[in-house]
Amino acid sequence: VPHPPLRWSDEGDRGPAVVLLDQTRLPTAEVELVCRDPAELIAAIQRLAVRGAPLLGIAGGYGVALAAARGLDIHAAARELAQARPTAVNLATGVARVLAASERQEPAGEEPKRPTSGDPVAALAAARALEAEEAVASAAMAEYGLTLVPDGARILTHCNTGALAVGGTGSAFAVVLAAHRAGRLRQLWVDETRPLLQGARLTAWEAAAHGVPYSVLPDCAAAALMAAGQVDLVLVGADRIAADGSVANKIGTYGLAVSAAHHGVPFVVVAPRTTLDPATPDGAAIVIEQRAATEVTTLAGRPIAPEGCTAFNPAFDVTPPQLITALVTDVGVLQSPGRDGLAGLLGR
Amino acid sequence: VPHPPLRWSDEGDRGPAVVLLDQTRLPTAEVELVCRDPAELIAAIQRLAVRGAPLLGIAGGYGVALAAARGLDIHAAARELAQARPTAVNLATGVARVLAASERQEPAGEEPKRPTSGDPVAALAAARALEAEEAVASAAMAEYGLTLVPDGARILTHCNTGALAVGGTGSAFAVVLAAHRAGRLRQLWVDETRPLLQGARLTAWEAAAHGVPYSVLPDCAAAALMAAGQVDLVLVGADRIAADGSVANKIGTYGLAVSAAHHGVPFVVVAPRTTLDPATPDGAAIVIEQRAATEVTTLAGRPIAPEGCTAFNPAFDVTPPQLITALVTDVGVLQSPGRDGLAGLLGR
Repeated sequence: VPHPPLRWSDEGDRGPAVVLLDQTRLPTAEVELVCRDPAELIAAIQRLAVRGAPLLGIAGGYGVALAAARGLDIHAAARELAQARPTAVNLATGVARVLAASERQEPAGEEPKRPTSGDPVAALAAARALEAEEAVASAAMAEYGLTLVPDGARILTHCNTGALAVGGTGSAFAVVLAAHRAGRLRQLWVDETRPLLQGARLTAWEAAAHGVPYSVLPDCAAAALMAAGQVDLVLVGADRIAADGSVANKIGTYGLAVSAAHHGVPFVVVAPRTTLDPATPDGAAIVIEQRAATEVTTLAGRPIAPEGCTAFNPAFDVTPPQLITALVTDVGVLQSPGRDGLAGLLGR
Repeated sequence: VPHPPLRWSDEGDRGPAVVLLDQTRLPTAEVELVCRDPAELIAAIQRLAVRGAPLLGIAGGYGVALAAARGLDIHAAARELAQARPTAVNLATGVARVLAASERQEPAGEEPKRPTSGDPVAALAAARALEAEEAVASAAMAEYGLTLVPDGARILTHCNTGALAVGGTGSAFAVVLAAHRAGRLRQLWVDETRPLLQGARLTAWEAAAHGVPYSVLPDCAAAALMAAGQVDLVLVGADRIAADGSVANKIGTYGLAVSAAHHGVPFVVVAPRTTLDPATPDGAAIVIEQRAATEVTTLAGRPIAPEGCTAFNPAFDVTPPQLITALVTDVGVLQSPGRDGLAGLLGR
């Protein structure tokens, strides 16, 4: 079992801490980063030492628990934690949930004696509950997803969807791991996932740590691998799923889906129900973040393109439901996901 | 006009030389590499300071001319030059052609006085003729290819097919440049082309040098760009074309072709007739070189994947003729290239 991406620590003389596995140092070094107050945790979130929407929610929750344990102003800490990164809704949600649990309840009619400090026991319990729920959702996705994995499967995945991004053992990666443990996985193919290489750096590290047989590949080699009959199933995660079943996920996902359809390879999305966004009607309504050209035009600080080079560098793309064979969630599998099926899933 | 990738020099006190633009230093530095004997040129070929099948043929030819000018054993030099890299047939062809031209013709019945040395004037003339022929072929491809480029075209390309790889201004890139000069090019999209980044490093450098409007993108973002309606035409080169019209080209080409077909974007291959290989019956008969995992698992010498990580890293993939809209050659355009059309082309 690899290092946990995040843990609460009460050890040592220096009091409680949130201990992160510094993801910026992976895969070459496994370095723990000890955050003893919310400010240190915020800095770690901002430099991507911890990342992945669901994992950021858990980290934010523990950040509020840390503020409570330190006797700090929990409202100020929650505000700053929630704003550490703008996009992941899970961060704000996790923070708000632990904040609500840690607000002191005074007897009716009495003013709280220390209105800004929180209940450290309740806060920690709420953060632990959030973490446990994500682990339960991950286990459920693994179980449901396993029903779609054939014997001797060669599975292709993209980006990072394991413990380093999600609670438990992840979303798509949780299914991979379940297949491995069930003796059903012949090979995991890991797209390197340019430009930030979350596949080569993080998914490969998780696969190696769990003894999963794996190889990485340049993203653009996936189609050739499918043509060679070397892929039985594509499993990816999701950042947001619109009401019509369109899936926003890491750039490159859509191209994989097009290729999988061309080769008759099942294309399966694995995501917790919390990723469904009924307020977004369809794929066209999903706003795609455009990221800096330097992510593409430099490597390790060294330019790999001419000076002044611009880049098309969206963080995500959108895969329409017509290209998705099945959606695996923590409450069940939806074949050929569409508007009605998703509405039904949200009603469960 | 950018630096030429290769030129013959007679300047200076130190005698003749083949002067290369060191492609390993691009795009950050434009460094000339002066090769004063075949051994220096062979070393440059082996460390990829000069690359690209047709350009290697020209380099090999000038290498024999250099041996002749230096009074060296031209047969030994030709043997070593031809073996500098194993795959590119053009290298051996170019060397053999200049060697044949430079062998001294003695009057009938007389033994050559210096049997191993060559005729430097004839050798240089043959090398120059080879270079000129490649430039003529490039210009012809540009002219034929231009007939397929619509006004205001946004063209997507992969790998490097310009002067740095081919004679003249290249194959696919020659068409791009012709479109730019004809005022017909709105945008060139350059796939970065993992793992060795020939797009970001070399094609982007050539585009910038010629003032072509361009942007790079991660290879896996090309499908999203097509879905957004931002690509009017895909232009790629070819390393080898089988008798049935299957095209072996840089890894990632096939995935682009699948994506182009899905989006109804014309997919056009540009290659000189010398790339046609009637001895290879079909795509399945094309042997694909598998390259070292370290090309994928390290960047600038730094590991980006776990220790011991393996990789699927083929140098090329094969695109079947069904996915190819047209083949542009130096002797004309073939729509929907197939076995009969290719045979006809070879007969011209």
